[in-house]
Amino acid sequence: MSDTAATPSRVAFLGLGVMGFPMAGHLASKGHDVTVYNRTAAKAKAWVEKHGGRAAATPEEAADGADAVFMCVGNDDDVRAVGGAVLSGLKAGAVLVDHTTASAGVAREMDEAARAKGLHFLDAPVSGGQAGAENGVLTIMVGGAEDVFARVKPLMDCYGRSVVRMGDAGAGQLTKMVNQICIAGLVQALAEGMAFAQKAGLDGHRVVDVISKGAAQSWQMENRARTMLDDKFDFGFAVDWMRKDLSICLEEARRNGSLLPVTALVDQFYGDVQAMGGNRLDTSSLMKRLAAKS
Amino acid sequence: MSDTAATPSRVAFLGLGVMGFPMAGHLASKGHDVTVYNRTAAKAKAWVEKHGGRAAATPEEAADGADAVFMCVGNDDDVRAVGGAVLSGLKAGAVLVDHTTASAGVAREMDEAARAKGLHFLDAPVSGGQAGAENGVLTIMVGGAEDVFARVKPLMDCYGRSVVRMGDAGAGQLTKMVNQICIAGLVQALAEGMAFAQKAGLDGHRVVDVISKGAAQSWQMENRARTMLDDKFDFGFAVDWMRKDLSICLEEARRNGSLLPVTALVDQFYGDVQAMGGNRLDTSSLMKRLAAKS
Repeated sequence: MSDTAATPSRVAFLGLGVMGFPMAGHLASKGHDVTVYNRTAAKAKAWVEKHGGRAAATPEEAADGADAVFMCVGNDDDVRAVGGAVLSGLKAGAVLVDHTTASAGVAREMDEAARAKGLHFLDAPVSGGQAGAENGVLTIMVGGAEDVFARVKPLMDCYGRSVVRMGDAGAGQLTKMVNQICIAGLVQALAEGMAFAQKAGLDGHRVVDVISKGAAQSWQMENRARTMLDDKFDFGFAVDWMRKDLSICLEEARRNGSLLPVTALVDQFYGDVQAMGGNRLDTSSLMKRLAAKS
Repeated sequence: MSDTAATPSRVAFLGLGVMGFPMAGHLASKGHDVTVYNRTAAKAKAWVEKHGGRAAATPEEAADGADAVFMCVGNDDDVRAVGGAVLSGLKAGAVLVDHTTASAGVAREMDEAARAKGLHFLDAPVSGGQAGAENGVLTIMVGGAEDVFARVKPLMDCYGRSVVRMGDAGAGQLTKMVNQICIAGLVQALAEGMAFAQKAGLDGHRVVDVISKGAAQSWQMENRARTMLDDKFDFGFAVDWMRKDLSICLEEARRNGSLLPVTALVDQFYGDVQAMGGNRLDTSSLMKRLAAKS
């Protein structure tokens, strides 16, 4: 396939947070003509100073004339507001790609709205965190039409290492939900293990060295267990964001008839962490909650 | 250090289950003079036919004249019964190594009983499962005196890839407990994720391919998620054994003041699996329980 010929090169990126800022940067550094928009204009100005391109005053202005628009905003309401504005300004045949972690419902809504206007929509939540965005090695889980995906995948490859279409509209969001469900209970189990190790008088770091060679191994154990033991919880993905994601998972589970007993419990535990003032701590702060209670 | 000179070579192995049988076999194949004992004599006979050495009729007889005795039996009561018999038959200065997953309390009891007789005891539970035992690549977590550990480590190296002293008597068992605590909630989280993926209409195998590259990755995800999706639960470590281990963890946590809310809940879920007749299914059968309920 000749990606170059098929790939749109005039693009817009909306939402320059800790994820969007470097993602848009990778598009620019790979030679694409990027217009950015951010609600707080200062960030868009800073981005242009670093990467060139242009800053637009509104989502509509950013979208004007673009072949593809990417956005990475906060929640379902932001997706509706910013995405809705974009769809009213896009030229026929253009694509809106949403990197926000949002509900599958809003993804299907946007997909329908796009189709009604002769436009295209992909839901494309990411994982890999700030470091993954900065290093351009994100995992991107995509829902939407296959031909549209093929058209914009080369652009997402600028900041994604694993860019995979999971199915029709909403399938990207559903896959991200599975990811968060698998993480929630896992992190709590790890926190219980580490808190127990401390109470048992073991050298927690040595315990991690030993048990991470076997069936208890996980990315979280390798990357967060030692920082949990050292009472450090400033490694990125915040409890407030995790609760937003888990609320999306729990609502979808109610809809599709899944049972998520441990995920639901861990969501409540994150509520404890928030009540302790830990809103901006990272997700491994479940350890801090256990330590405070025992 | 001259391991060869310091290493006892006349050894006994008691308990020839799925773990002990191959572990004792590695000792024999590395040239050690091995006497075995098993409650069901036919297994000891089969072992001798395969590996040479001798079969003893009782634990005392197996221990007679041995420099080191290894055992891998069922639970605390078995450790007390078999271990107590061994200690009454061992020659001065000899070592009893217990590979059973048991309580830290029984490890300390046996350690004291050994010391009172001028003998030595190490608690040395293993992880790595039947395959790890067969391939001689177990992780062995050891509690007990440093010099005694140094003396018998070369023997454990016959079937262990990572043989580590974690502290004084009981520390091996406590480390194994941390391992099981980290696994219990992790497997449930994975089961919730996989069941959700199915209900959401996603291709679960593709979801695993994608999310196992990131922060949700775990040994369990790489080795048990696909079999969960395929409704296969015959991969070794049985629910009955996991409940035994979790009961040890929960009792110890009550003693040392740790909170294990998710571990306790998952233990109850394994009780559901038992009630469904799944006693011999492997630990990933938490998936089967979710599927049955939703």
